[in-house]
Amino acid sequence: MSRIIPRAQVESFTGSFDAIVCGFGGAGACAALELRAAGLEVLVLERFSAGGGSTRLSACEMYLGGSGGTSLQRDLGIADSSENFERYLLQCFGAFTDRARVRAFVDGAAGHFDWLEGQGVPYRRSLFAGRDVVTLTGDSLQYTGNERAWPFAASVTPVPRGHLPEDAGHDGGKVLMDVLMQRVAEAGADIRCDHRVTALIRDDSGRICGVEVKADNRLQHIEARSGIILAMGGFIMNEELTAQHIPQLTAFCTRHGNPGDRGDGILLGVAAGGNAIHMGQAFVGVAHYPPAQLTYGIFVNAQGQRFINEDVYLARLGAAIANQTDMRACMFIDNQYFARPDYHQTTEIIATGDTVAEVEEEAGLPPGSLQHTVAYYNEQAAQGADPLFHKSPDWLAPLVTPPYALVDYSLPQLQPTCFTLGGLDTLPTGEVLTVDGEIVPGLYAAGRSAAGIPRTGAGYASGMSVADATFFGRLAGRQIAASAGQP
Amino acid sequence: MSRIIPRAQVESFTGSFDAIVCGFGGAGACAALELRAAGLEVLVLERFSAGGGSTRLSACEMYLGGSGGTSLQRDLGIADSSENFERYLLQCFGAFTDRARVRAFVDGAAGHFDWLEGQGVPYRRSLFAGRDVVTLTGDSLQYTGNERAWPFAASVTPVPRGHLPEDAGHDGGKVLMDVLMQRVAEAGADIRCDHRVTALIRDDSGRICGVEVKADNRLQHIEARSGIILAMGGFIMNEELTAQHIPQLTAFCTRHGNPGDRGDGILLGVAAGGNAIHMGQAFVGVAHYPPAQLTYGIFVNAQGQRFINEDVYLARLGAAIANQTDMRACMFIDNQYFARPDYHQTTEIIATGDTVAEVEEEAGLPPGSLQHTVAYYNEQAAQGADPLFHKSPDWLAPLVTPPYALVDYSLPQLQPTCFTLGGLDTLPTGEVLTVDGEIVPGLYAAGRSAAGIPRTGAGYASGMSVADATFFGRLAGRQIAASAGQP
Repeated sequence: MSRIIPRAQVESFTGSFDAIVCGFGGAGACAALELRAAGLEVLVLERFSAGGGSTRLSACEMYLGGSGGTSLQRDLGIADSSENFERYLLQCFGAFTDRARVRAFVDGAAGHFDWLEGQGVPYRRSLFAGRDVVTLTGDSLQYTGNERAWPFAASVTPVPRGHLPEDAGHDGGKVLMDVLMQRVAEAGADIRCDHRVTALIRDDSGRICGVEVKADNRLQHIEARSGIILAMGGFIMNEELTAQHIPQLTAFCTRHGNPGDRGDGILLGVAAGGNAIHMGQAFVGVAHYPPAQLTYGIFVNAQGQRFINEDVYLARLGAAIANQTDMRACMFIDNQYFARPDYHQTTEIIATGDTVAEVEEEAGLPPGSLQHTVAYYNEQAAQGADPLFHKSPDWLAPLVTPPYALVDYSLPQLQPTCFTLGGLDTLPTGEVLTVDGEIVPGLYAAGRSAAGIPRTGAGYASGMSVADATFFGRLAGRQIAASAGQP
Repeated sequence: MSRIIPRAQVESFTGSFDAIVCGFGGAGACAALELRAAGLEVLVLERFSAGGGSTRLSACEMYLGGSGGTSLQRDLGIADSSENFERYLLQCFGAFTDRARVRAFVDGAAGHFDWLEGQGVPYRRSLFAGRDVVTLTGDSLQYTGNERAWPFAASVTPVPRGHLPEDAGHDGGKVLMDVLMQRVAEAGADIRCDHRVTALIRDDSGRICGVEVKADNRLQHIEARSGIILAMGGFIMNEELTAQHIPQLTAFCTRHGNPGDRGDGILLGVAAGGNAIHMGQAFVGVAHYPPAQLTYGIFVNAQGQRFINEDVYLARLGAAIANQTDMRACMFIDNQYFARPDYHQTTEIIATGDTVAEVEEEAGLPPGSLQHTVAYYNEQAAQGADPLFHKSPDWLAPLVTPPYALVDYSLPQLQPTCFTLGGLDTLPTGEVLTVDGEIVPGLYAAGRSAAGIPRTGAGYASGMSVADATFFGRLAGRQIAASAGQP
């Protein structure tokens, strides 16, 4: 299969646009809106029969803040400086951080929220201060990541940054995408569904100048005079690519996304000389909450030892379990706090008992190991302390109400939701970069076709993907407009 | 910088060979020998003023076995079935394993040893059965990896597979490469040093058909009629590439290799459409032995907990420390077993005391944590047991002789040696593959320019790199010969 076609081999174009947006999910829709706002002729190509992508399947949580706060944060009296926002993101991704991308995001995120509201996405001025992944209370602001957990809270003041469409619960993505797709249509973009991009066309100068598209079983060639945006999702649904890049997860992962997340944008970009980076990084979601009360439980590994503060975000937990012996972990919990996790109703209870010793023996843990772990934890928790992992006092309580249970959260058994974080290396403005850091002329990427703000599962927070996709989709659209001499 | 030049842009070639080998290290030398053995005209291009590469800087340990045993293993009465060898390698790299590559290696490794001896590399029929990275006893066979450590030994019978040139100690690479380079010259290959390959030349059919080379400040273009082998090392010396792919290590890693390990072969291959895989995987060497007695010590993390059986290979330890909080780890040891590790003479003693409690307090570890860890370990070790991590009874002894010490092995302080494991995806026979698994015609890779047998630091063993480079260098040479219709 050849994904690059020399311009000379294309007899004639069946159409010509200023810009072509490949993929009509969150990134593509936002790119199209900016392109149309600048007056450019825009073609949007979608592989499936309708747009939406994985963004439409999401809760549409968006991780936004900075600039003193989004209007929603400010209306609730919550200050969020850009400095604090940036420091938090740096702490999340450490050496993996793309500093320039984070800087652009931090500077523009609050304005992005205004833009989303301006498009017609409804937000309620109310905060959910509890612990949940996606609140079902109808509130539009919540904590979504590790903000209140160690080591983050120890050096960066926690700020809630998860913005959710009003009353949408898990259906926020539908609210967002139905609005955005409507706006794109109203704005006059040419939207063609059931159109699959099969190749990029490159002219003699090396510039990507068009696409080959398959529709109705025929190949067409369409020109893009100013730029092409790859916004075709990640690659979690591509079994060959995941076997290659995240082989350790493929035996058990529950693939999270839409069926089009096959890496097509990444592969097209690579064929054009783009550099795919962090292809081995993934989100591994071990949702031990809600209900929040499970945060009172403690996780132990095959050695009966704790290995994390249990008040972390679910993907930080997943990343930590992946590092334990045989990716094995269990939650020890007492009868007072026991519950089934909402997102993993099938967790298996592998041991119960009226004493910790009984549980330890039934589970086959090393003699004395769990007993020590629980006794030490309880002794310290009674004083509001967790000297090992610094779990917040909010979630510290001795586990002393029998019967006790040990619940399996081992990755092979739990089959956690996973999606990929690797993608094309780009400038914040979307230009695809080669291994030498040079721009591939005419080619842009956004959304999970690009390596975005979230770069490790351990630093991820709900809302980072959709915020990244929509924000950087807009930036790519604006950059093409600027390159075309439009405002 | 363009690394691919269309054939049409090359006016004329200044030379023409059946095969061009880029890089005169272990992989390149072996490839050249096979090419010459098949009667092909061979050009070897070396960037530096003499060949040798990182192989010449190594101890030339080679991880070999199978087929009932190499002649060296068999002469010592050591049986090594291919099935056992393969099972061990599968256990080392798990889901990351390239099954076809492992199969080819297991089937051919014993024959490879005979070939090396045939070239004139001297081996002594003697086994060093102790615990060391590279024995200085002059013996030619030793255990080099995790063979005798849990969980490996629990399911695969340990076999010593580290083959070392006789009496060479750390200088085995010089012995090997001086022999091989001499043989390549005698065999009539055209060897050109101070020749830097700057680009590949591609003909209209998509075949890689030549190289652009810079020498004496002039560019030359040289044709390869049957194939080109990229054998130019890994990328640990390339700060841009390591910042991109192993950012978490770059702040402190001691870069292990020769100055030419800049990823040139990988970048050339990618430019030609090749697929670079596992670019985020690296060897992190925390050499807590020799002296072997340090294996009696125990490693604890920031929580004062053990996290590994201390009888593992040094890169498995390094991988485990990288997963601990702040990549922090210390060895707790008593006065009976205390020593400075040979490879890390500057380790810092961060706490000492006549009691474990004193050490714990001085180190600022959580109250009671180290005391429990040591008490539990000692109690179990007295019975020859390690129920947590299953360290071999050979290395279990209560640590009860004061004073006690806690020695810092945290990665940022220790600055461990690191090298990269990612590279071009190839068939076992060296053909470079695209992201779609298709062959890039005319292009081959071997050595650390390719992703080889060792794919994770946690499964690595000394001897895997040089064995892989030399073995698969030969296979690539033979494949080009076969493609050219030569025996």
